[in-house]
This record gives sequence, C-alpha cells and structure tokens, in this order.
Amino acid sequence: MTKITVVGLGLIGGSVALDLSSQLNVTVTGVDNNIAHTYQALELGLVDKIESLEKSLNDTEVVILAIPVDHIEKQLPSILDNINDKTIVIDLGSTKDKICQSVADHPRRGRYIAAHPLAGTEFSGPGAATKGLFRNKKNIICQSDLSDNDALELAIKVMNSLGMHNIYMTSEEHDKHLAYVSHLSHISSFVLGLTVLDIEKSDERIFDLASTGFESTARLAKSNPSTWTPILTKNKKHLISAIDKYSHYLSAFRSALADDDQEKVKALIMRANNIKRVLKK
Amino acid sequence: MTKITVVGLGLIGGSVALDLSSQLNVTVTGVDNNIAHTYQALELGLVDKIESLEKSLNDTEVVILAIPVDHIEKQLPSILDNINDKTIVIDLGSTKDKICQSVADHPRRGRYIAAHPLAGTEFSGPGAATKGLFRNKKNIICQSDLSDNDALELAIKVMNSLGMHNIYMTSEEHDKHLAYVSHLSHISSFVLGLTVLDIEKSDERIFDLASTGFESTARLAKSNPSTWTPILTKNKKHLISAIDKYSHYLSAFRSALADDDQEKVKALIMRANNIKRVLKK
Repeated sequence: MTKITVVGLGLIGGSVALDLSSQLNVTVTGVDNNIAHTYQALELGLVDKIESLEKSLNDTEVVILAIPVDHIEKQLPSILDNINDKTIVIDLGSTKDKICQSVADHPRRGRYIAAHPLAGTEFSGPGAATKGLFRNKKNIICQSDLSDNDALELAIKVMNSLGMHNIYMTSEEHDKHLAYVSHLSHISSFVLGLTVLDIEKSDERIFDLASTGFESTARLAKSNPSTWTPILTKNKKHLISAIDKYSHYLSAFRSALADDDQEKVKALIMRANNIKRVLKK
Repeated sequence: MTKITVVGLGLIGGSVALDLSSQLNVTVTGVDNNIAHTYQALELGLVDKIESLEKSLNDTEVVILAIPVDHIEKQLPSILDNINDKTIVIDLGSTKDKICQSVADHPRRGRYIAAHPLAGTEFSGPGAATKGLFRNKKNIICQSDLSDNDALELAIKVMNSLGMHNIYMTSEEHDKHLAYVSHLSHISSFVLGLTVLDIEKSDERIFDLASTGFESTARLAKSNPSTWTPILTKNKKHLISAIDKYSHYLSAFRSALADDDQEKVKALIMRANNIKRVLKK
C-alpha cells in the first residue's frame, strides 16, 4: 500500500487525489488549511482521510504539493527537513524557477521533483476536482538532474498513472515558455473582462450580446486570485517581457485602424492566422 | 414556394442556406463570386441552385447578404435599385452603422432590414457551414422603424425559422456594444497569437506547451482576414476606444507586476472575476 499525501485540495490537488485514490494499493491522505475544504474533499471522496501535515509526513511515501506557488516556496524547505529518507516531494506549481532556487542548496534536494502538469480549468476548490483531468496531458519536469534517480522514477510513475506524459526542461525555460502560452493568456482574459465590465456600467444590456467568441476569450477571467496572484508575480520577469511584446502588437492594430490602413490590418490578421498551424482543432 | 437568395456562401451564408433549404416550401438560390465556393455549396447541399445575382433578383422574395461588410456597404444600394417592390433585403453583417447610413436616403429603404445574428465559429468557407448554427442564438435588428412593416415581419419570420430570437437597437448602439463584446475579443486573440508566434522563432518547442487555456484565448486568431479586416476598420471609432480602455488595464497589470504590488494584482483579478456573473458556464 503506497501512502500519498496531497497538500492543497483545490482544483489541481483535488483532481490528483481523486484519480490516485481510485487506484489499487494507494491511500490518499489530504492536507488543507481550509477546514471546509477538508470536509468537502472527504464528502466528495477525493481522499481516503484527512491529517495534519506534520502527522502525515511521519509515514507517507509521496508528498504532492498543490497549493499556491508562494506557499510552495515558503513550505518546501521545511517539508524536506521533515520527511523520511525515502519519501519524495513533488510540487505541481505553475512557476518553477523560484521554487527550485528555494531548495537549490537543501541537503535533501534529491528527494524533490519540480513538476507542472499542463491541465486545469477556470474553476477552483474541491468541487472543481475532475476525474481524468490529467489524462493525455503533458507534465513538465524541471531540473530532473537534481533529483535522485529513484525519486525521479517514482515521480514519473505517479504522473504516468494519472495519464500524463512527461517533458523535461530547465526551470528558467519553463517559466519563460509558460509566461507566453499560459500566463499571458490569463492576463489577456483578465484585461478583457475588466474592460467589458467597465463599459457595462453605462450599457447594462451589453452582456445580452456576449457570444461564444467572448465566452471563449474571457473564460480564464474567472480564475482564482489566490492561485494566480502569486503565479503572475513570481514570473514577473518573463511576463513583463511578454506583456511588452503583446502591447507592441496591440499598438500596431490600433495604429493601423487609426490610419485606416486596411492592408496593414489584413497583414496582421493573416500573420496571426499562422496559429492554425499549432491549434489544429 | 418562397424563393430566398443567399449572397455569400461562407460560414454564415452557408449555414443560413443549409437551414433554410431544409424547410418545406422554400427554395434557396446561392450567389457567390467565388466559383469554387458555388460548386462546393451545391455539392454540400447548402443551396438548391446557383444563379447570378442579376438573374436571381428577378423573382426572389428574400435576399440575404452574407458577404464582408465592406461589400455589403458597396452593393446594397444597387441591390435595392434592382429588386421587385415586394422583395426584402436582409444583411447579416457584423457592423451596422455605415451600412445603414449607405441606404438612409434610398427610396427603397423600407425593404431593407439590418440584422446581425450573434453566432459563428473561427472557421470559414462553405465547408464551415453548420446545421443549427443559429438555434437559440440572438439576432440583433437595427433601425427597425425604418423598415416597412411587412418587410420587418417577413424578416422576423425568417430569423425565427432559423431558431433565433430578435433584439432591437440603433445601429450606433449595436456598433458600440459589439466593439466590446466581439471585435475586441478578436483583437485580443489576434494579438496573443502574434505575440506567441513571435517567440516561437527562438523557442521552437513553445507550442508543445500550449494548454487548453491558450487554445481558448487564441481560438479566434484563426478568423478569416477577408471577413474581419472590414469589420474592424468599419467599426474603428468604437474599437479604438475599446482598445484604449483595454490598454489602460493592461498597463495597470504591468505596473502592479513591475512594482511587485501583489495587493494590486489580486484586486485586478478579483474585479475581473465579476465576469462570473455573466459567463455562467
């Protein structure tokens, strides 16, 4: 029987717990500071039992951290201090560089695996936990050379059992890439939401007109502030570069429109259309 | 037998034709400058036959214009010149003000109905035509007081038969509202696509990392340049205001990140979260 401890029972942790607890010979213990969430996780059958972090670390084999990235950064060193020699700790945070830095010199660095499953929805809390959320998704593992071989093997086994395939890169590469393909998408959705909500003050009927296009582009604006505030701020270096490039193209559209330069507008759209190459659906 | 002429057999016109041609006692004649599209529309069974616009106007009862908005603006006056007294002309363009202005003083203004069905996808051409695309969607009718009663009644009947319910406003209101809930969504998607494609030049693997969040926010970046260039430029007055407000919030995020002001980042996200009120899904 493998004992796995999932710390943080929201969308990601709850979904991990749900899939792992359905496996033979696995017991999942949930840890969460939010008491209401622990009751909800038990009631929804996401976990087999609830324990305090301290108690759970005594006999767990795998610790999975699915809490906001600033909390991971703060708690990871002391969790590594308190695990048994064979226990491994996997974090699932959406930024990786500062977290990796926080334990770079830790004597138990080898027991830690820095992971980021590329899966999620705009919803949050244990009620958002979804069976099979990770199936056929990618999981990024960073700095895998700094993890002990047996720890890495076990982490890969856990991730594969959730249906993910693993890809490998440095934490710096990870944060740069994710700034563009994930964090910037969230910024653009938040900004779109803010803009349209602002207009609603004078035009109450505006949302009668929201169509599927708006729903698609503004969907991520529902995302959880406790999760996303630390992600965006921890990755500010790359994200600010991404925002600046985004602003550049936004200004290009604005100027082309102001100048009535239809050729320029069309050229920008045609260039953006190259996204078809990568978004096949 | 009601003869309906659909001009423009792309996503919107093709979908309208498909639904109308399946109705009893309706024949749908397709008109399109693109010869390949006319063959495709026949083959896909979107229309009953293909005619030239001139020939079709001799005996048609309803003309539906589903061509780019700049073409609608150019062709609408001469189409009204050439219809029979009882024929009605409905345009389905995504901007309305300049089109309405182009026929404001036309002697046959009463035969024209300015419409905009709030439905679509990011795909284009006859192959993108979708059965039931308009079911349970909203259709905006502008300046309905300038249409003859019998013309308006027939247009409403056509729209209802496609499954839409109609809402009414001025063309100015329409263009302002749509700048925010539709056209700005497209700009944000185009800009996101351009930004990430740019980064791809140095990071070839970046799209391995694109997750469902990116797909959702960048989906509209696939939209057709021939359709969207004229929409964006014809609605530039309202759209530039929308872009400026959007830029304001984008800068607010950038400054909050640059200043490491987590409270400010969180406040912006929480405010954007109010979009939950209107995006229920």
